Amino acid sequence: MASSKPQAPHPIRVGIVLFPGFEPLDAVGPANVFGAVEGIQMLWIAEQQGPVSSKTGSMTVVASHSFAEMMPQQQQQQQQQGGADAADPKLHWLLVPGGVGTRKEVANPSLLSFLQAWAAPDCGSGLQLCMSVCTGAALLAAAGLLDGRRATSNKMAWEWVTSTGPKVQWVRAARWVADGPFLTSSGVTAGTDMAVAVLKTQLGSEVAGAAAKYNEYMPNTEADVDPFAEAGFVPDV
Amino acid sequence: MASSKPQAPHPIRVGIVLFPGFEPLDAVGPANVFGAVEGIQMLWIAEQQGPVSSKTGSMTVVASHSFAEMMPQQQQQQQQQGGADAADPKLHWLLVPGGVGTRKEVANPSLLSFLQAWAAPDCGSGLQLCMSVCTGAALLAAAGLLDGRRATSNKMAWEWVTSTGPKVQWVRAARWVADGPFLTSSGVTAGTDMAVAVLKTQLGSEVAGAAAKYNEYMPNTEADVDPFAEAGFVPDV
Repeated sequence: MASSKPQAPHPIRVGIVLFPGFEPLDAVGPANVFGAVEGIQMLWIAEQQGPVSSKTGSMTVVASHSFAEMMPQQQQQQQQQGGADAADPKLHWLLVPGGVGTRKEVANPSLLSFLQAWAAPDCGSGLQLCMSVCTGAALLAAAGLLDGRRATSNKMAWEWVTSTGPKVQWVRAARWVADGPFLTSSGVTAGTDMAVAVLKTQLGSEVAGAAAKYNEYMPNTEADVDPFAEAGFVPDV
Repeated sequence: MASSKPQAPHPIRVGIVLFPGFEPLDAVGPANVFGAVEGIQMLWIAEQQGPVSSKTGSMTVVASHSFAEMMPQQQQQQQQQGGADAADPKLHWLLVPGGVGTRKEVANPSLLSFLQAWAAPDCGSGLQLCMSVCTGAALLAAAGLLDGRRATSNKMAWEWVTSTGPKVQWVRAARWVADGPFLTSSGVTAGTDMAVAVLKTQLGSEVAGAAAKYNEYMPNTEADVDPFAEAGFVPDV
């Protein structure tokens, strides 16, 4: 906890997609980085509002919103109607965690449609950034969102994840990869580093540094440095 | 997510204490480290079973158990009764996160009694380890559990936390501190490093390394190395 937080110059709403079997730290690492900035709000979104169970750590998180209620109002439609919210989408950033549940969710049309509605090219949703952590990249790939783009994922499920996106330019040795509005990170805690990097590019080094300090976190700052890409690597403990 | 997890040689039940305004990453960082080991089970315990809201990240986690149902059966009593469970307490390890909610919880007799019942000297609960993350140390201190012991906490709330335990030997420059069965960590992500260190001392380097690898986490392995102890320090981003 901190006595004072850095401030975003404008409100940012981050949708975090939940599904049964999501990896808790994939979601909570970035959420704690973003949540250290005043003005960034997290919305926890699942197929249905209510409790969503993870496997690791047996944690259950409550989804505050459903896919249905958080479907984007198309910006084009809003502009035709002259709506005041045309330039202010419901979500500015989207974050998709991984976890064992992705094996099932790659075939969940409801989840894939939600991702497409927000992040497909020229969908007019107004979304600025679409991020994945760990095997969350498989969900973006299965939705066709990474075709022709550079992307990464975690190394322990590498063969399976890359099989879900044959048209993706998979980059094995990367802590995270940025390609246009898409940012994909490697396994679990790589998402926390990606989140710090996102704050840096979007809100500046001062805000990113303050968010890292709030979490007493020493971030890995090099997107291309990834010892886990080497087969058999185990960190020193 | 991993295809295979390391295995604990015996079941370990870790109670994670939740309260309104807990810091999500304080709880989830260690939970993901421990949860990467088969045989370690997490129980999410709050005053009442059901949803518990955090502030950072607006996350709500469901408590699986209440304080009342998780009060220890005194080992001595069990031994007198010749119960088969005398040597197998309900919880083996306890983890107390921090967060803004600690400011209120230091005066919550229900929470303090729960901590005392499990972790007071000679209480006979059978608990092996009692850990805190961030301002969670204030809750242990307020319960009188750290008197005469070395302990640390996060640096942004240092003045307040240390005021809750005038008989504690507070150590400012520490990523985490181990003193007997008590381990206290500094802010937020310091708890993740403490969790890796706990696995190393309790289950060996191989299990700890595998858990870090599962999370693609490069742990800070030196308990005494703490750049955040220096006033005004901000990490490079």
